[in-house]
Amino acid sequence: MAPKTSITVPSPTDFDPGLPRSTSSTSPDSEPSCPFCHISAVFPPYNPSDPPSPTSPILNPELTSPQPSTFIILSTPHLVAFLDIMPLSVGHVLLCPRPHRPKLTDVSAAESAELGRYLRILSAAVVRATGIHDWNVVQNNGAAAAQVVPHMHFHVIPRPELRDQRSERFTATMFGRGQRDELDEEEGVALAERVRRAVAEVLRADEEAGAKL
Amino acid sequence: MAPKTSITVPSPTDFDPGLPRSTSSTSPDSEPSCPFCHISAVFPPYNPSDPPSPTSPILNPELTSPQPSTFIILSTPHLVAFLDIMPLSVGHVLLCPRPHRPKLTDVSAAESAELGRYLRILSAAVVRATGIHDWNVVQNNGAAAAQVVPHMHFHVIPRPELRDQRSERFTATMFGRGQRDELDEEEGVALAERVRRAVAEVLRADEEAGAKL
Repeated sequence: MAPKTSITVPSPTDFDPGLPRSTSSTSPDSEPSCPFCHISAVFPPYNPSDPPSPTSPILNPELTSPQPSTFIILSTPHLVAFLDIMPLSVGHVLLCPRPHRPKLTDVSAAESAELGRYLRILSAAVVRATGIHDWNVVQNNGAAAAQVVPHMHFHVIPRPELRDQRSERFTATMFGRGQRDELDEEEGVALAERVRRAVAEVLRADEEAGAKL
Repeated sequence: MAPKTSITVPSPTDFDPGLPRSTSSTSPDSEPSCPFCHISAVFPPYNPSDPPSPTSPILNPELTSPQPSTFIILSTPHLVAFLDIMPLSVGHVLLCPRPHRPKLTDVSAAESAELGRYLRILSAAVVRATGIHDWNVVQNNGAAAAQVVPHMHFHVIPRPELRDQRSERFTATMFGRGQRDELDEEEGVALAERVRRAVAEVLRADEEAGAKL
């Protein structure tokens, strides 16, 4: 499909955990204690081909307060993506379905296709925004696989060229061991804006190439 | 879309590196030295909802000889999936686009959606076939990100519960360090058959649930 120019903004009740929406999945659409459901609930969808101004209230990183700030880079009716707040590298982003889906096998068939589409688009956008041309995509399912937040998400993690020792630390840290530093607020705002613009550029390039989205 | 019941089998010339097909991507559809292009070239598509008998010549693991045997678990007009021949765990499988696409950003928009769809289906099938309910999805882009075969592929890697030391070795090995053992031929044949059947079960369950594929 072509990037949507008109998007239905969900009402707050759509995300009220007290009013679960009907769904074909066995998992509820929202979990009160889930931080990613909270992000889904407070950030409305926008047109990714024409993102709002960085000062728009619908992108305000503090919408998730008192939880940590959230730097949104994509918000569609079905998906949200944002900067990892404990990044392994500059440009480390997360992509997840808007409804609560614990594992990849809990997403609907349509959601899985949408995740696939945007994984490619986000990867291209992160490469554009960071200038780093190598990256990992990682998605963990279950505690034994190092999943921390039980709302399924893909990590897109730029991999700058690192010397051996830093590279080993990077890999170990990717799966939950070792030190990760918190995202700086000011850098987060600037980086998220660069990625949102890059997403729009990728979508427009696809449209010009006549790609069927 | 519903699982296809009639599938066009590509002719060998479709994969002849001397006769590149037109494509919207900048990468060629086949690379003579690429092992995954070789797999794509020798294994024709079949209906994943009704896979061939394990003794069918179109599943013969030796079709890739003199290169290592290939245990096919999915073969559609757009994608192929097979057992990793150096598995990190039982049920470690790879999913890739049939044409040569070096990185995730080289796939078409339609291919990316198809990869997303089948990543969910394969994950569910691997869980069914192995009985292991936790797993990682990993996809590496470029040498700095530990990509070895430059034809993009998703790893689906079951994660049995492991004690700490084995778990650390597992993680290190996932990114190219440490020892990986070769897949046993007989086990490969039996496991691939279980995964193919599980894929068919997942697709039929989706169809019964009225899921839009």
